[in-house]
Amino acid sequence: MTETTDKASRRRFLTGAAGLVAAGAAGPIVRADDKNLPPHVAEWTKQLGEGVGTRPYGTPSKFEKDVIRRTVPWLTATPESSVSFTPLHALDGIITPNGVCFERHHGGIAEVKPDDYRLMIHGLVDKPLMFTLEDLKRLPRVNRIYFLECAANSGMEWRGAQLNGAQYTHGMVHCVQYTGVPLKLLLEQAGVKPSAKWLMVEGGDSAGMNRSVPLAKALDDCLIAYRMNGEMLRPEQGYPARLVVPGWEGNMWVKWIRRIKVGDQPWFAREETSKYTDLLENGKARQFTFVMDAKSVITSPSPQVPVKGGKGFTVISGLAWSGRGKVARVDVSLDGGRNWRTAKIDGPVFDKACVRFYYEFDWNGEELLLQSRAIDDTGYVQPSKDDLRKVRGVNSIYHNNGIQTWALKKDGEVENVEVG
Amino acid sequence: MTETTDKASRRRFLTGAAGLVAAGAAGPIVRADDKNLPPHVAEWTKQLGEGVGTRPYGTPSKFEKDVIRRTVPWLTATPESSVSFTPLHALDGIITPNGVCFERHHGGIAEVKPDDYRLMIHGLVDKPLMFTLEDLKRLPRVNRIYFLECAANSGMEWRGAQLNGAQYTHGMVHCVQYTGVPLKLLLEQAGVKPSAKWLMVEGGDSAGMNRSVPLAKALDDCLIAYRMNGEMLRPEQGYPARLVVPGWEGNMWVKWIRRIKVGDQPWFAREETSKYTDLLENGKARQFTFVMDAKSVITSPSPQVPVKGGKGFTVISGLAWSGRGKVARVDVSLDGGRNWRTAKIDGPVFDKACVRFYYEFDWNGEELLLQSRAIDDTGYVQPSKDDLRKVRGVNSIYHNNGIQTWALKKDGEVENVEVG
Repeated sequence: MTETTDKASRRRFLTGAAGLVAAGAAGPIVRADDKNLPPHVAEWTKQLGEGVGTRPYGTPSKFEKDVIRRTVPWLTATPESSVSFTPLHALDGIITPNGVCFERHHGGIAEVKPDDYRLMIHGLVDKPLMFTLEDLKRLPRVNRIYFLECAANSGMEWRGAQLNGAQYTHGMVHCVQYTGVPLKLLLEQAGVKPSAKWLMVEGGDSAGMNRSVPLAKALDDCLIAYRMNGEMLRPEQGYPARLVVPGWEGNMWVKWIRRIKVGDQPWFAREETSKYTDLLENGKARQFTFVMDAKSVITSPSPQVPVKGGKGFTVISGLAWSGRGKVARVDVSLDGGRNWRTAKIDGPVFDKACVRFYYEFDWNGEELLLQSRAIDDTGYVQPSKDDLRKVRGVNSIYHNNGIQTWALKKDGEVENVEVG
Repeated sequence: MTETTDKASRRRFLTGAAGLVAAGAAGPIVRADDKNLPPHVAEWTKQLGEGVGTRPYGTPSKFEKDVIRRTVPWLTATPESSVSFTPLHALDGIITPNGVCFERHHGGIAEVKPDDYRLMIHGLVDKPLMFTLEDLKRLPRVNRIYFLECAANSGMEWRGAQLNGAQYTHGMVHCVQYTGVPLKLLLEQAGVKPSAKWLMVEGGDSAGMNRSVPLAKALDDCLIAYRMNGEMLRPEQGYPARLVVPGWEGNMWVKWIRRIKVGDQPWFAREETSKYTDLLENGKARQFTFVMDAKSVITSPSPQVPVKGGKGFTVISGLAWSGRGKVARVDVSLDGGRNWRTAKIDGPVFDKACVRFYYEFDWNGEELLLQSRAIDDTGYVQPSKDDLRKVRGVNSIYHNNGIQTWALKKDGEVENVEVG
C-alpha cells in the first residue's frame, strides 16, 4: 500500500524532474560566484573550528535558536500552572528530543533530590512497600517508545480555527523511549488484595497532582519510568520518576510520583471531576475519558514553516498516533477532504507511539487545503471537527482529535482554517 | 529464547524475593523518620516549583551533571583533532541523547551557515549538480535508526586492559534516528556514468576530511542526513548535513559534507592510507576495512557505575551492534567466558543499530568476571581479545571488537581486566 505510493512518487520524482528543477532543487552548477563551491573555499573551511571538550553536554546550532518550546501568554495565567508547546513544525522522524518535549505543570517543577526520592505503595495490599531510586534501578526494566498527549491538546480549536501553528494547535504531544519498571512487578511485590480495583497515584509536586487509575491498566502496561531517550528524566518530565500510562491522557502520567494507594473505587480527585471531564451540550459531562483517540497533524508545511522556493516537488510531513494501538494508515487530502490519498508511513510503527508519514507531490502553485486523517488498527477513523462537535458540542476543551486543515496559499504561506 | 530467560528471571524475581530484600529493594515501610514519606511532606512539595518558559530548550537535572562527554588528556594532542566519549555507563535503552553523542574531529567543528551550505555532485556524471539545504529539504526523505562507531573505538585496549570505564573503552559509539535523503536519489538525478565505481566524499571542515566510498554502498543505503533524533544535526555531528554510511566505520560518515566526486577508483586519501588501515604483525596493512564487526559491552555494572546496595537481585545492562546486519543474540558470562547464558534483548532490533540487552540474576556477593558477546544474523560471533590478537597482532588501533571483561569485586566496585 504505502509501497505503491512510494514507488509512484519516486517515479514522479525521477522522471518528472521538472517539478524538482522548478523548485530550484538540484540546480546545475552555474553559480560561479558562489564562494562556497570549488574552486572557492568556504569561509568556515579556512579556520580551525571549535575543539572537543568545550561542550561536555552539547547544545543545538546557534542557527537553530528558534526551535524551542513556546508558551501562549493568554494561556499562562501563572507560569507554575501552565503549558509550553513542542515545536512539532521544526521536527521530523518520531523521536522528540528531550529538550523540546512540551511541559504541563500544576504547581511548577518539583526539584526532587534523587537520594531522598521515595515511592510508597500502600492501601489494599498484603505488604506496604517503599522504594528508593536505587531500589527501582535494581529491578527488571523495559524500554518502550510511547507518545504522551495532554487531553487538552488542540483544545483551543473546539470553537473554530484559532492558533496559527502546529506547535500551538498540536504541540502538547511528544514521543520518546522510556526506560522503567513495569508497575505490575511492584504491585506483585506488595501483594494486591482481591477487592482491589483502582489505584490513586500522587505526585510529589506542590499541587500534589493525583489521579485514579484502573488496576487492570496498571497491571497491563503501566511503567514507573526513570529514563527518557536513554538519559534520566528531565526535571520538567518528573525527575527522577514518573508514571507512564500508554495511550491514555497525559494528566494521568503523574510526575515526581511519590505514592500509589490501592483501593476498590475511584477517588474522584479534583483533576478528574472539576477538570479533565468533557462537558456536553446537555450539561452532562463525560467522565473517565482516559484513552486518547487516533489523531494526526501535518507538521510541514504549516503556518510556522511555509513552502520556500515556490511550486514543484514538495514533501508533506506529519505525525499520527492512537491510544488504542498501532496506526494502520494515514490519508492525506489536498482539497479539504474531498479526495484522499494514502500517505507513506516511514520509520518504525510501535503500539501507542507516534508514526511519521509523508506525502510527496508536484505542487502546481495553486492554493490547497491540506488535511490528514489517521486510521488505527481497531478500524477507528479520525473524525472531522464538525462530526466531533455534533456529538460533543463545544463546551469542553478536552479530547479534540478532529481533522486539522491548513490552507497553503499561492505564495507558500500557510494558514489555520476550517472547511465547511 | 530470550522469552525463556525472561520468564526464568521473572520467576526468580517474584519468588526468590530474598535477593531483592537483601538488596534493600522493596523494603517495608518502617522508616518513620523518613521526611519524604507520609505523613511527612517532602521539602520540594512545600513550595511552588519553577514555571514553564524559563527553559525554552531544556537541560538535564542539576543532579545529573556528571552525565557528560569526557575527553582523555593524553589522547587530546590538540582539541581540534581529538575525541570526546559517550557516557555509555550512564545511559540505557538504545537512543543516545544528542547532547552526549561522542565527537571525533580532524579540524574542529566547522561553523556552517545553513543559507550558505552547498553540496556539489560532479565527476563521472551526466549532469553536475549543486544542492542548497532548502533543495535537500524538498526531496524525499527517510528515517533510519543506526549506530555510528569510530574505527578506533576500544583501540587503546589492543595491548591490554587500559582505560577504566565503559565510557572510555567503548564510548566512541552512539545510536540515533537520522532523517535524510537517500544518496541514491541524488546520484540518479546527476546520472552516474557506466564507468563509475567509487565516490570521493569531502567535508567542509578545515581538515577537508575526505574518504573513498564504493558506489555500490552509496546506492544501497547511504543517506545525506540533516536531522538526528528529530531536530537538525548538532554542530559537532556535521550541521547542517553529513553522510550516513550504515554499519561502516565512522570516519567515512563525512560531516559538513560539501562535495561528492564520482570516479572509477579509490582516491587513497590520507585518512585511508596513513590512517584507518590496520597494520599487521608482518608489516602489511589491511586496507579498506569498512565494516564494523559485531560487538557488545556491558554498560552497567562497569567501573564508573559499581553495584550499590550489596548482593541480591541485580540487572546487567549492555549494548550490542553489528555493521553486517541485525544482532541475533547476546550471551552473557559471569565467570570470564567459561559458561554463557542467553541475555534478554529488550526494545526494538533494527538493522545496523544498537540493541539493549539485560541479564537478571541474584548476585551472591562473590567476585565475578562479567563478559558479553554479540552474535549477528550472519552467524558471526564476537571474538575474544586473544583470538583477535592471534590474527591481527597489536600494531593497529582500529577495529578492536574483542570481548570486554569487567571484574565485579565483593564490595561492588568494578575493574577493567583481561582473562587468559
